[in-house]
Amino acid sequence: MAIIVQKFGGTSVADADKIRRAAKRAISTKEKGYQVVVVASARGKQTDQLVADALELNPNPPKREMDQLLSTGEQQTVSLFAMALEAMGQKAISFTGGQIRMMTDNAFTKASIQSINAEIMHEQLRQGKIVIVAGFQGIDEEGNITTLGRGGSDTTAVAIAAALDAEECEIYTDVDGIYTSDPRIFKDAVKMDQISYEEMLEMASLGAGVMHIRAVAFGKRYNVNIHVRNSAKDIDGTIITHEVPQMEGVVVSGATVQKDMAKIGLIGVDNIPGNAAKVFAHLAKAKVVVNDIIQTEVSDEKANLSFMTSISDLDTAKETVEGIKKEIGCQEILVRQDIAEVSVVGVGMRTHYGVADKMFGALAKAKINIDSITTSEIRISCAVDEDQAEKALVAVCRAFDLDKPASERTF
Amino acid sequence: MAIIVQKFGGTSVADADKIRRAAKRAISTKEKGYQVVVVASARGKQTDQLVADALELNPNPPKREMDQLLSTGEQQTVSLFAMALEAMGQKAISFTGGQIRMMTDNAFTKASIQSINAEIMHEQLRQGKIVIVAGFQGIDEEGNITTLGRGGSDTTAVAIAAALDAEECEIYTDVDGIYTSDPRIFKDAVKMDQISYEEMLEMASLGAGVMHIRAVAFGKRYNVNIHVRNSAKDIDGTIITHEVPQMEGVVVSGATVQKDMAKIGLIGVDNIPGNAAKVFAHLAKAKVVVNDIIQTEVSDEKANLSFMTSISDLDTAKETVEGIKKEIGCQEILVRQDIAEVSVVGVGMRTHYGVADKMFGALAKAKINIDSITTSEIRISCAVDEDQAEKALVAVCRAFDLDKPASERTF
Repeated sequence: MAIIVQKFGGTSVADADKIRRAAKRAISTKEKGYQVVVVASARGKQTDQLVADALELNPNPPKREMDQLLSTGEQQTVSLFAMALEAMGQKAISFTGGQIRMMTDNAFTKASIQSINAEIMHEQLRQGKIVIVAGFQGIDEEGNITTLGRGGSDTTAVAIAAALDAEECEIYTDVDGIYTSDPRIFKDAVKMDQISYEEMLEMASLGAGVMHIRAVAFGKRYNVNIHVRNSAKDIDGTIITHEVPQMEGVVVSGATVQKDMAKIGLIGVDNIPGNAAKVFAHLAKAKVVVNDIIQTEVSDEKANLSFMTSISDLDTAKETVEGIKKEIGCQEILVRQDIAEVSVVGVGMRTHYGVADKMFGALAKAKINIDSITTSEIRISCAVDEDQAEKALVAVCRAFDLDKPASERTF
Repeated sequence: MAIIVQKFGGTSVADADKIRRAAKRAISTKEKGYQVVVVASARGKQTDQLVADALELNPNPPKREMDQLLSTGEQQTVSLFAMALEAMGQKAISFTGGQIRMMTDNAFTKASIQSINAEIMHEQLRQGKIVIVAGFQGIDEEGNITTLGRGGSDTTAVAIAAALDAEECEIYTDVDGIYTSDPRIFKDAVKMDQISYEEMLEMASLGAGVMHIRAVAFGKRYNVNIHVRNSAKDIDGTIITHEVPQMEGVVVSGATVQKDMAKIGLIGVDNIPGNAAKVFAHLAKAKVVVNDIIQTEVSDEKANLSFMTSISDLDTAKETVEGIKKEIGCQEILVRQDIAEVSVVGVGMRTHYGVADKMFGALAKAKINIDSITTSEIRISCAVDEDQAEKALVAVCRAFDLDKPASERTF
């Protein structure tokens, strides 16, 4: 019998009515002939409350204890979910991460999944039960409770779908699926029927925010079809899956904008091997996330180096480069805080030309100056003034027909 | 190094300040040279809230899921407790019941402890840590979470003290210890320095309410000294321990009153073997707790049978006896609801005479009519009108000098 894994996030299980709605969804899927495994997050703001309780006692709580504490939120949801199902006449059993032997390393608060005992779940499914598993958590080999970090419930769901060889992993959320762009900015954005893992990874890391990047990467690695759906509606959402030939016909699948970016420029760095490596090694050590590195030679002796980072990392980044300024012979450090990045993403770019031209043209036509450009195999990103960011996104979306279904686009 | 187990109930860990106060107590005990294990309950009203959440989804929640849910309350407390200790510079580690292999049977919501892995705790204690264990919970051999029932944290603490061969198990509460009588009724009641398990069991089952009867029975069985203390004061409380010869000099250790009792009388039951057994077998099946059974022969053919029960069980009890009234040839069923039971308890009764006389005399002098009398080896109980219950308790307390330390009593 085919298996469906259904993941419900915190807002989808926030109160008794929402738990009942999610439980009905699981039952209706079972009635269609599937075995159903539910993965649930902590209810609503429970995790935030527990974090606040912890910080009141210890501004720097030990990570093992933090995981011991936070894992209770999901444990509460799954037992309540099982009770709701039983009240509807559906046999059910809830499991903590530890109870299905969701084994992780011992990197508390950001553990990685190593293995899952699928047989424990299979046995319950064979008995006709719906199995509900606490997301976000596992245990290490010493029996300590670990958590996968915020958003880890998506990863739990995809990992369980992989372990059970499920037909699909459904991620329930409060939107209809993945859109070609952010509908709050480009109101004509349309829902995609499908998107490749690679595109989703680029879009997630660029701030599309619906799916967690680790879960998508996990799905890609273990061939899990991920279906992002609206928990309040009975319509298909977006399926994240492997690239299929027909996807190549779609040159640009989506466009994103990432605000709250900053750009740091190191002017007149000594042009000798190892200087760039030194800069980024120091930044990595300071845990600064760096994007879009550009290096340009200005003379035989000197080069300019720039990179982007988020505003939240800016102070640490500035401190770090100030600290090695002398060592690398840097003459001046420039910082731009009023910057945003507009990107187009599509696996079709691999085989189509002219995407960059079209993007630059659209921005020029809208009178938007491009500060810098970076590209990957399936992405083109332009840094622009932050106050022009939304206008830039709309211009790019129009240029690539992102208000139309993929089959009707002219590019 | 000697070990002390300290149990803090829900009110002693209700908020951050109270957790800090309890943590300081544990540290100060460690600084006196002990290894310290803390057992903690769920914070304040957390368990009540979780029960309400469950009932909102299912008026009759599956017991396994109820235990999965309720066990999170204690898990939250122990991790927060460990964080508080670490914030004070004390190394600490928290454990769920499952993590110390607190093995129980699978009688969900009222499981019995079968074994504990003491070595897991010893190893952490040797590393200089304070170990904090979630009370009230364990796991069965399949890894399901179980709970020991309300008040189970006392039992957890005593069981851990037994497993670790601890010097003492301290039960922290909001009173100074065990009193000779209820200070709300007999305001001159004094704190006892010590009391035997047997006496405590009689007083606990008679409504003294400070210690849970299972924990006392466990302590008796495994020779654990239980020290009931006030969490807000640094003074000795009452030690519950094995009977020692000097205890015999104290004839009456305490007096209790149990209100909200009812008495059911079966008049004219056929005086044939097996009829009484039939009545109490039916009552046991209906889960009615029965006290103070009295049977009197009224003729060769007929006998009267009466017993006491709590008001909360009265309806079930009445229904049950109505159901077998014909079968046992009972002529009439009488019910008295306005009844209370006053008792005196003391291991010294075994070797002293005149206790009953003195008790009946004190009640007579106070013009209190005795409805019926029952006794055990170390207890004498009198049923009286409920509206005379408090007056009766005070009269008995005065008669046995329960306002004086044991050494100064004249009886």
